Amino acid sequence: MDQEYNVNNGDNVNDIENEGLLDGKQNERYSSQFSDESMAYNEPFLVKRRNTTSQIAIIGANVCPIESLDYEVVENELFKQDWRSRKKVQIFQYVVLKWAFSLLIGLGTGLVGFFSNIAVENIAGFKLLLITDLMTKKKYFKAFAALAGCNVGLAAAAAALCALVAPAAAGSGIPEVKAYLNGVDAYPVLAPSTLFVKIFGSILGVSAGFVVGKEGPMVHTGACIASLLGQGGSRKYHLTWTWLRYFKNDRDRRDMITCGAAAGVAAAFRAPVGGVLFALEEAASWWRSALLWRTFFTTAVVAIVLRAFIQYCASGTCGLFGEGGLIMYDVSTVKVKYSLADLLAAILLGAIGGILGSIYNYLVDKVLRVYSIINEKGAIFKILLVIAVSLLTSCCSYGLPWLAKCIPCPTVVQDNCPAVGGSGNYKPFQCKPGYYNDLASLFLNTNDDAIRNLFSTGTTKEFHMPTLFLFFASIYCLGIITYGIAIPSGLFIPVILAGACYGRVVGRLFGSISRLDTGLFALLGAASFLGGTMRMTVSLCVILLELTNDLLLLPLVMLVLLVSKTVADTFNIGVYDQIMKLKGLPYMEAHAEPYMRNLVASDVVSGPLVTFSGIERVGNILHALRSTGHNGFPVIDEPPISEAPELCGIVLRSHLLVLLKGKYFSRDRVRTGQDIFQKFSASDFSKAGSGKGIKMEDLDIQEEEMGMYIDLHPITNASPYTVVETMSLAKAAILFRQLGLRHMCVVPKSQGRAPIVGILTRHDFMQEHIFELYPHIDPHKRTLDQPEEDI
Amino acid sequence: MDQEYNVNNGDNVNDIENEGLLDGKQNERYSSQFSDESMAYNEPFLVKRRNTTSQIAIIGANVCPIESLDYEVVENELFKQDWRSRKKVQIFQYVVLKWAFSLLIGLGTGLVGFFSNIAVENIAGFKLLLITDLMTKKKYFKAFAALAGCNVGLAAAAAALCALVAPAAAGSGIPEVKAYLNGVDAYPVLAPSTLFVKIFGSILGVSAGFVVGKEGPMVHTGACIASLLGQGGSRKYHLTWTWLRYFKNDRDRRDMITCGAAAGVAAAFRAPVGGVLFALEEAASWWRSALLWRTFFTTAVVAIVLRAFIQYCASGTCGLFGEGGLIMYDVSTVKVKYSLADLLAAILLGAIGGILGSIYNYLVDKVLRVYSIINEKGAIFKILLVIAVSLLTSCCSYGLPWLAKCIPCPTVVQDNCPAVGGSGNYKPFQCKPGYYNDLASLFLNTNDDAIRNLFSTGTTKEFHMPTLFLFFASIYCLGIITYGIAIPSGLFIPVILAGACYGRVVGRLFGSISRLDTGLFALLGAASFLGGTMRMTVSLCVILLELTNDLLLLPLVMLVLLVSKTVADTFNIGVYDQIMKLKGLPYMEAHAEPYMRNLVASDVVSGPLVTFSGIERVGNILHALRSTGHNGFPVIDEPPISEAPELCGIVLRSHLLVLLKGKYFSRDRVRTGQDIFQKFSASDFSKAGSGKGIKMEDLDIQEEEMGMYIDLHPITNASPYTVVETMSLAKAAILFRQLGLRHMCVVPKSQGRAPIVGILTRHDFMQEHIFELYPHIDPHKRTLDQPEEDI
Repeated sequence: MDQEYNVNNGDNVNDIENEGLLDGKQNERYSSQFSDESMAYNEPFLVKRRNTTSQIAIIGANVCPIESLDYEVVENELFKQDWRSRKKVQIFQYVVLKWAFSLLIGLGTGLVGFFSNIAVENIAGFKLLLITDLMTKKKYFKAFAALAGCNVGLAAAAAALCALVAPAAAGSGIPEVKAYLNGVDAYPVLAPSTLFVKIFGSILGVSAGFVVGKEGPMVHTGACIASLLGQGGSRKYHLTWTWLRYFKNDRDRRDMITCGAAAGVAAAFRAPVGGVLFALEEAASWWRSALLWRTFFTTAVVAIVLRAFIQYCASGTCGLFGEGGLIMYDVSTVKVKYSLADLLAAILLGAIGGILGSIYNYLVDKVLRVYSIINEKGAIFKILLVIAVSLLTSCCSYGLPWLAKCIPCPTVVQDNCPAVGGSGNYKPFQCKPGYYNDLASLFLNTNDDAIRNLFSTGTTKEFHMPTLFLFFASIYCLGIITYGIAIPSGLFIPVILAGACYGRVVGRLFGSISRLDTGLFALLGAASFLGGTMRMTVSLCVILLELTNDLLLLPLVMLVLLVSKTVADTFNIGVYDQIMKLKGLPYMEAHAEPYMRNLVASDVVSGPLVTFSGIERVGNILHALRSTGHNGFPVIDEPPISEAPELCGIVLRSHLLVLLKGKYFSRDRVRTGQDIFQKFSASDFSKAGSGKGIKMEDLDIQEEEMGMYIDLHPITNASPYTVVETMSLAKAAILFRQLGLRHMCVVPKSQGRAPIVGILTRHDFMQEHIFELYPHIDPHKRTLDQPEEDI
Repeated sequence: MDQEYNVNNGDNVNDIENEGLLDGKQNERYSSQFSDESMAYNEPFLVKRRNTTSQIAIIGANVCPIESLDYEVVENELFKQDWRSRKKVQIFQYVVLKWAFSLLIGLGTGLVGFFSNIAVENIAGFKLLLITDLMTKKKYFKAFAALAGCNVGLAAAAAALCALVAPAAAGSGIPEVKAYLNGVDAYPVLAPSTLFVKIFGSILGVSAGFVVGKEGPMVHTGACIASLLGQGGSRKYHLTWTWLRYFKNDRDRRDMITCGAAAGVAAAFRAPVGGVLFALEEAASWWRSALLWRTFFTTAVVAIVLRAFIQYCASGTCGLFGEGGLIMYDVSTVKVKYSLADLLAAILLGAIGGILGSIYNYLVDKVLRVYSIINEKGAIFKILLVIAVSLLTSCCSYGLPWLAKCIPCPTVVQDNCPAVGGSGNYKPFQCKPGYYNDLASLFLNTNDDAIRNLFSTGTTKEFHMPTLFLFFASIYCLGIITYGIAIPSGLFIPVILAGACYGRVVGRLFGSISRLDTGLFALLGAASFLGGTMRMTVSLCVILLELTNDLLLLPLVMLVLLVSKTVADTFNIGVYDQIMKLKGLPYMEAHAEPYMRNLVASDVVSGPLVTFSGIERVGNILHALRSTGHNGFPVIDEPPISEAPELCGIVLRSHLLVLLKGKYFSRDRVRTGQDIFQKFSASDFSKAGSGKGIKMEDLDIQEEEMGMYIDLHPITNASPYTVVETMSLAKAAILFRQLGLRHMCVVPKSQGRAPIVGILTRHDFMQEHIFELYPHIDPHKRTLDQPEEDI
């Protein structure tokens, strides 16, 4: 049989670091936001139609062994032993610790969320106070210099952190978390340094007045906190603890990171249910009822923590942090009554949001590709790009308000008019007392306050139409050019800002026939644009409801989201999926592609198949580990151990390394059986934290030991999932994805052949790999025109 | 190899009808609420430690072929042909129809939900008006006679409908829907007659003053509506349409029924997001993102329909249906401020709810077992039982208020005091003007109004403690004895009533140290009891929030639910799971049991293995179909077709019947190949509606045809999922469950043997079957003490 296999990944010590752009045409590269330290970094990864095995071999590099989805890390004697030895107390401990960790994740994320809000409010508030002060003294140039100076300083600090300490902290982080939860183990994405930079970079970036949010970064932060806890701290920073061993498998870690992502959303929007739904709808690839419950617990903790802090700060002890530091646009005081006209308006808004959203995604993609060329040139270019964008943003936010006319303050008004402090709805800007500049109220505020102003009810006339158009256009463009620079940057806030703007415009247009408040139209506009870019439905809906605390708007929000998602989906995919694809993260969809129905499992098996005997020579194992990048090797029992050659199971590279490190050798070709328990305990084989496993360099095998034997049976997973070579590839893909496998054995259909045909890994199901093998498949037409079809 | 297999199910024409009690000790039987018409009905099913093949064979009877979870109904030439022939237009049609059907389900469920609310409000309102009228005239005996008479009349009507027309309509229906979505195809559960009885039985039952809700039945109603649409109407009632063919597979039907269940919750509680979450958390076994979106759409439609009707009825055109006909307890006007004391109160409430909930479940189980003996005796006994419970309920609701003292009306009150109409918070009962009877306010109201009274805020002193205790005790007991009688009966309302009662009690106790309103304590109490019985978390939380329209309570509700679920889970399982188990529905859990780790796939294979050749004699097929109840048969290619015997795939009974009916025979043992397309189209093989497939009796095979041959290759599923015989049973179970299989082939590990060892079906994974084979496994200790452990 010539079918061979390919199990990815050379040294999986640096789990990621090979990130590149997936683009068949120009082979341009997208400067990964991950560590540049790795050699492999410059290898484009998943490049189409380049038929070199090394390319293919790299692909699986980021794939984590998630065969443990079904909890049984390895179904063999050793681990049975482990289970048997687990006393009831230990299982109890395990369960209690799981919950304790959920609590810690909730507490941690809540704390960080609150801290970053306070920091942003204070830094940005101080900056705005300074400028307002200068403006009232008519020192216009000084005011601009102060604004631009502050912004550039903050931006440069954020960019420096990001470019020099943790490039993985740039961007939103949601695509990376999503990919991790799908089984793509990209180490720096969840590293402690990334966490640090994400928190402080996000505070600096948002304070610098960029059109970015802290919501996406909060999700990433939550996931990082969960990962740090799940790994039992960071060995690098000497923060470790012994509970570590309880969570040494992928499933538990993934569960914790799911909780972390949910906690992030909950902390960002004060939306605990929305957080759970976000984790469910957007982040997680596998889901269980038990996880729902734990996630829910985590977000509840976040909600309680935030509430406690807000009550503490209500007395004014948190500096410039007012009650509204955390975004919360309470519109529940407005009586919602809507008619048929409002339904039409909702559908119109949905359509606009869908179209604008898909254009937004398209442009973000293009800009990211351009930026990748710049960012690739080095850290200094990254920082310069950030500074350039910062200057542009400062120019917009200071320059454009000059175009707006001064408006006399409304006679009845709850807020101060003109505003006296840093925030407020009525910024005086250049106007004389008793007047305000509506565009300045939007531009020279924190983004959160700008959203609050746009969502504010009973303020129909207070933003003029040209102001809304101008603000929308600049936010839309700034949002596009800001995402992709080397700072932590969330997409939620720019999208909500732009959406709320056109929502208000539509509200004004429908003003005569609608009874809805313009502020509610702004909310619907934001929903439509969110739906158009992110393509979530239920979670966005719940997040918006929790933000605005008005359940009566629910049917309208649902309608808007449904329309905008439907419209946008006809053009392109969601922004997070798009970024994930751009970064070349090998995400496995839950469904099989239609062309897979016409291939069988053995059609996509590739690469050289390396197998071991049940009792193998040390030299052979070392050679195989050195010469291939495979992470899993089939073990075949041959006579005299069995009657005929038969597939014994599969061994993992990491487990082989443990045996080699521990020198579990014997002079003769015999089964050592239970002896292994004298040398190893089950926890020696449990999964190490990212980047912490035994490396090839750690081995010290003497020449005379090369001829000795290792009995692989105790560490062989004797129950690997297998498919017959003639199994439809579509069904094999579903099996692989649903069970969260890393390796799937392909066995021959007929007898009398070698007991294994090959191994399928995540990479083999990737569209790029299949199209490379079968270039005549047309993915767009998705027709079934290849000759092998009727096999 | 002696290992044999067992593929369940005799004639799957009556898909269910064999329902019995799963109880090893006494073999008592729980009278199923399903059709008594079936012969098989009296067979206890899943009886432990009775080693007769017929018993085993019955078990799979209710299992529907859900191998189509991965969309590929059968992975063979015929269906590839089908896919190829599907023009783009058809796929477009398919997608549009899916959405159209979701719309229809939403509209239908919304309409039915609203209709039943109006009906209940009018019938019960009329009854209560009559009694109030008689009471004010001091005709106390007449009033009781009127109450009891109305109640018994309504109850008897409901029971008659239920016992004679559709026994499957009794009870809540949620366990059956849950089982269906897990793959248990129980025909009468979703039949049109069940829908009819569910709607009208529920209206009559609730109007009869039983302590039951219409919420569970609404879920069932939604599922029935979806099923009716999915099957393309009912052939029996001459309501069919041709779109039928688009949804002739299990996956599409299951999707629609998921939407229906969500729509039911949405209609019952006006909680669209809660409905989606309910479907996700409690109902569905498989879930996709696309389904989330469609479910969301359906519930949005329901919400809009309900809103439109309520606006229509607001002008008073719906008789006694007031604004509050649909439960909606708006507490958003209350300012929520809570302190540490309230957190403690919430934890206390959670603990109480957990303990009371688990006792409730325990008692419901016991009462159901007793009732099953009564119900089994015949329809007349069912009706008598209903009448007895109805009389008892009437006695309680009329008799107990006499024990309460008259309370002077509060001086400042929004409601009328004493109440003048049918509903209201201050029932005069026997009291003189200016006074009211607080217990009568709870008993002599519809359940919805009673809940509204308990949830009402600013009414701390208006229900006295003895009243609350008495009402709680009676509702708790009545709730337990009412569930299980032959009327459609939801569990939500009794649980909410009882929970709200003790919530108020706790609220009074904490009154001095808490700033929370007693009405909010009632809400938390209801949450705790719901959590303690039903064990849902996120969906209950969202449903309660949508009901009460107050998001600020969220953290407290979450805390209460978490505590109550945790406490209750230490004692027993949720009430729906318990009922499902009692009914013997073979539900497959998402996780494998620990003892399964110590068994391998071939350990549980049982029953005679019947296989076919690739080209098989008609006589053999007929004989196998007649003599076994199997639904799937392995097809083995033998020389000369293949070099050595090899597993070709699996054929389904239903597909064989199509070939036999169509007389697709040939005189010689040859492959007929593509000829099959001249006789059949793909739609001939698509799954018929429940109970509508070809039956054995429909066949008319002549004697001379018995010797002819059928080429089975075109209808053989050539890519069945297989496991090696040494695969851990735990992993096999997860594969089976995750992919939603019906048949899983077990293949030999070593070569040179028959190509198939046996077939695993849902039944083989059931605990009862495994414990029958291995009685020494102790499910409670879950130790791993069997000798075969270290295979």
